Amino acid sequence: MVTSLDFRPVTLVIGWLLLILSGGMLLPMVVDAYLANPDWEVFAVSGGLGLFFGAAMVLTSRGAPAGINLRQAFLLTNATWIVLPAFAALPLWLAGLSYTDAFFEAMSGITTTGATVMVGLDMAPPGILLWRSVLQWLGGLGIIIMALTILPLLRVGGMQMFRVEAFEAQEKILPRATQLAGALLGLYIALTFGCALLLWFAGLSGFDSVAHAMTTIATGGYSTRDASVGAFDNAWVDVIITGGMIVGGIPFLLLLQTVRGNGRSLLSDTQVHWYLGTLAVSIVAVAAWLWLFDAFHPLQALRYAAFNVTSVMTGTGYATADFNAWTGFPVAALFCLMFVGGCAGSTTCAIKIFRFQILYETARVQIKRLLQPHGVFIPYFNHRPIQAGVPEAVMGFFFLYLLSCAFLTMALALLGLDLVTALSGAVTAISNVGPGLGSTIGPAGNFAPLPDAAKWLLAFGMLLGRLELYTVLVLLLPQFWRD
Amino acid sequence: MVTSLDFRPVTLVIGWLLLILSGGMLLPMVVDAYLANPDWEVFAVSGGLGLFFGAAMVLTSRGAPAGINLRQAFLLTNATWIVLPAFAALPLWLAGLSYTDAFFEAMSGITTTGATVMVGLDMAPPGILLWRSVLQWLGGLGIIIMALTILPLLRVGGMQMFRVEAFEAQEKILPRATQLAGALLGLYIALTFGCALLLWFAGLSGFDSVAHAMTTIATGGYSTRDASVGAFDNAWVDVIITGGMIVGGIPFLLLLQTVRGNGRSLLSDTQVHWYLGTLAVSIVAVAAWLWLFDAFHPLQALRYAAFNVTSVMTGTGYATADFNAWTGFPVAALFCLMFVGGCAGSTTCAIKIFRFQILYETARVQIKRLLQPHGVFIPYFNHRPIQAGVPEAVMGFFFLYLLSCAFLTMALALLGLDLVTALSGAVTAISNVGPGLGSTIGPAGNFAPLPDAAKWLLAFGMLLGRLELYTVLVLLLPQFWRD
Repeated sequence: MVTSLDFRPVTLVIGWLLLILSGGMLLPMVVDAYLANPDWEVFAVSGGLGLFFGAAMVLTSRGAPAGINLRQAFLLTNATWIVLPAFAALPLWLAGLSYTDAFFEAMSGITTTGATVMVGLDMAPPGILLWRSVLQWLGGLGIIIMALTILPLLRVGGMQMFRVEAFEAQEKILPRATQLAGALLGLYIALTFGCALLLWFAGLSGFDSVAHAMTTIATGGYSTRDASVGAFDNAWVDVIITGGMIVGGIPFLLLLQTVRGNGRSLLSDTQVHWYLGTLAVSIVAVAAWLWLFDAFHPLQALRYAAFNVTSVMTGTGYATADFNAWTGFPVAALFCLMFVGGCAGSTTCAIKIFRFQILYETARVQIKRLLQPHGVFIPYFNHRPIQAGVPEAVMGFFFLYLLSCAFLTMALALLGLDLVTALSGAVTAISNVGPGLGSTIGPAGNFAPLPDAAKWLLAFGMLLGRLELYTVLVLLLPQFWRD
Repeated sequence: MVTSLDFRPVTLVIGWLLLILSGGMLLPMVVDAYLANPDWEVFAVSGGLGLFFGAAMVLTSRGAPAGINLRQAFLLTNATWIVLPAFAALPLWLAGLSYTDAFFEAMSGITTTGATVMVGLDMAPPGILLWRSVLQWLGGLGIIIMALTILPLLRVGGMQMFRVEAFEAQEKILPRATQLAGALLGLYIALTFGCALLLWFAGLSGFDSVAHAMTTIATGGYSTRDASVGAFDNAWVDVIITGGMIVGGIPFLLLLQTVRGNGRSLLSDTQVHWYLGTLAVSIVAVAAWLWLFDAFHPLQALRYAAFNVTSVMTGTGYATADFNAWTGFPVAALFCLMFVGGCAGSTTCAIKIFRFQILYETARVQIKRLLQPHGVFIPYFNHRPIQAGVPEAVMGFFFLYLLSCAFLTMALALLGLDLVTALSGAVTAISNVGPGLGSTIGPAGNFAPLPDAAKWLLAFGMLLGRLELYTVLVLLLPQFWRD
């Protein structure tokens, strides 16, 4: 399978994606220009550069063979998620951020992490705010498509369980399944539009509604306000966004089937059961604590618990309260939930529910086997026996996930960060959550004060988490580069 | 294999072990009586009770069949590590501690954890101090024997790799391999004696030398001083104890072979390489940090780094400095090292080096397989292919280990502990390390101020970690109790 490494198919796809990204810059440009904000120029210049390089890459890749092989697919995936944020950072850089900050913000956007180095969002030009939302929206869409097409074929961390027949092809790794992809795009747009409409009804401005709807469905977490969604202090807004984040953590393929009238697959999917069950238990536990020990009114406790638990577990990263200041249990629960994430094929990141199901089922079978060493026990997932190789892949993923968190924690600590900041920073980056814990990077803080080296490390952590570790780590094998 | 549950073989063995434990109470009783300390009575009373119940259990178990089956072996292992600390707590209780504190202290002793609720050790009667050391010494011996005899047969968490032929038998799970067991006991005593002698030469009193030698070789960590080994502020003592802890983390079977003239197995053992390598890298990194950023003299940095890194990684739990007050990197590194532990068949606890080797090897093979889906890759451990079932068992162990840490963290946080105390408390208990992080349970603190419920939870965590999780968790299966 290790065949010669022709870069043309890679540059061809990246070229097209650069053109799409540059197209995406039109939206903030038009908004800034319409509001007579001079910042429209940063988008014009960046968009122009993106168009130029994108077109150049597409044109010079002519004659590339139609399919791509496994090595090219790995390379393409990595290169996409490095080149696109590098370009997406341009408007932020031209608008005055250092390139380190701009790249961090763009990577945090496109990976739907939501950690920010920008302060003074309340005063920021609308174009910049919109660009951050557009980045997360495109990133969320990108990850849904990747989870349905490339990741199952690359077999990273058990994703081979989620092969979709429509996207399967013998040799070609990017087959044309335009119809299904189009339907998913339509659903993604419809959900965003619906969320925006509800937010507008609830009292947000049109601009805030659109900007938050985009980052809600993408479980991204960028807000237009320094105080995040808490700035609106509107219970309806909290409820709508909580609902939107929950939807963002459900497999989009199941949502599509439900919209098309077949709700049974959604209702009978055990991953969805575990996902909603974990959310419900966590929300009730945190709400009970806030009510009993932090003197919240019961309904207030439920509202704040639901919003912030959902935000952290789905890796969105909005906040309506400085949960870092909540005492005892909620902080520990939110820290643990950072590892959880939502379902496979959603816009969420982290370890994901299905992996915990596989891990639990495997451990259960092992414990049974201790008692009956010669018994035959078959682990199940979603009403079906788990296919061979999947448990090992998932368990290997779990190990590498925690090893990555440990190494990133130590690397951040080497830069002088305290334990809570380094540990929660590493986890929040790799899990694509957004805020960490502690006074610096907690929900009331900001990543701006960190040293530049820490920002690059965290950006790498976001990439690692978003590409499900293996996709990045495979590039470290010497065999990968050998012809 | 699930056969009827006859309790007699279980009560027979526990009866004998109770008799041994009561015998162990003679030592502190004699010391206290010799020094005319009225505390000798608490040992006389407790020892008498232990003798009575031990003898009663042995006598009523007459007629028990010679061998024991798998279920009885699981039950015996759990019951031993619950009944013995319950009895071992008696002298501490009679000496004035609450029973909760006494049980916590005894469990922390017998599991070689070393977390303490006792303050004023500098003023405590020598009998009590000696009893704490004896408990850890017996616990360390117990775990070596368990790791060589019962755990491989129970196949918990990959321990089946460490079967020892001399201890193998077809049906009987506690065969007589008196010769090997006797040699191991001799080695354990010789190492303790040697360590005590060196400490005495280095300037400690005879009593302090013996008490610390016992808890060094057992990687237990109970000291006779409130300020732990730091109270002596003696560089030679630090060096000797560092060496003793390192020895305590090596497989005792390899040490025995080396003493018998065959040092090759020790030198060629990859687990030992990884163990010493991890220690060396961690010590150098922490020492470099202390030198560069915490203004330590280079030699001082090396001394403190070596002692405290070794103490935490082997799960001993002594301290010569309040490492919680070290800034940045060392705290994060020590937190991560809490999970590591030493080699299988040593007195250390935690995940252990061999499991990290298996996890690393499995992940490496998986990444290679991503590139060559049809390639054949065989994972190796210690120059041999890993036997079937072991990677799954190890990966399942790793998952359950971290899941246990997460649940214990949340349970402790529910009792109102802050994140750092709850998290490091959970890890330090399950890994049998001793001190945690933060101002309450850090190396300069004490577990006494925690609520009683937290002490019981932590004691359960120690048991869970010491019995390699599976041994305890198997009791939760309804099948275990069904006839």
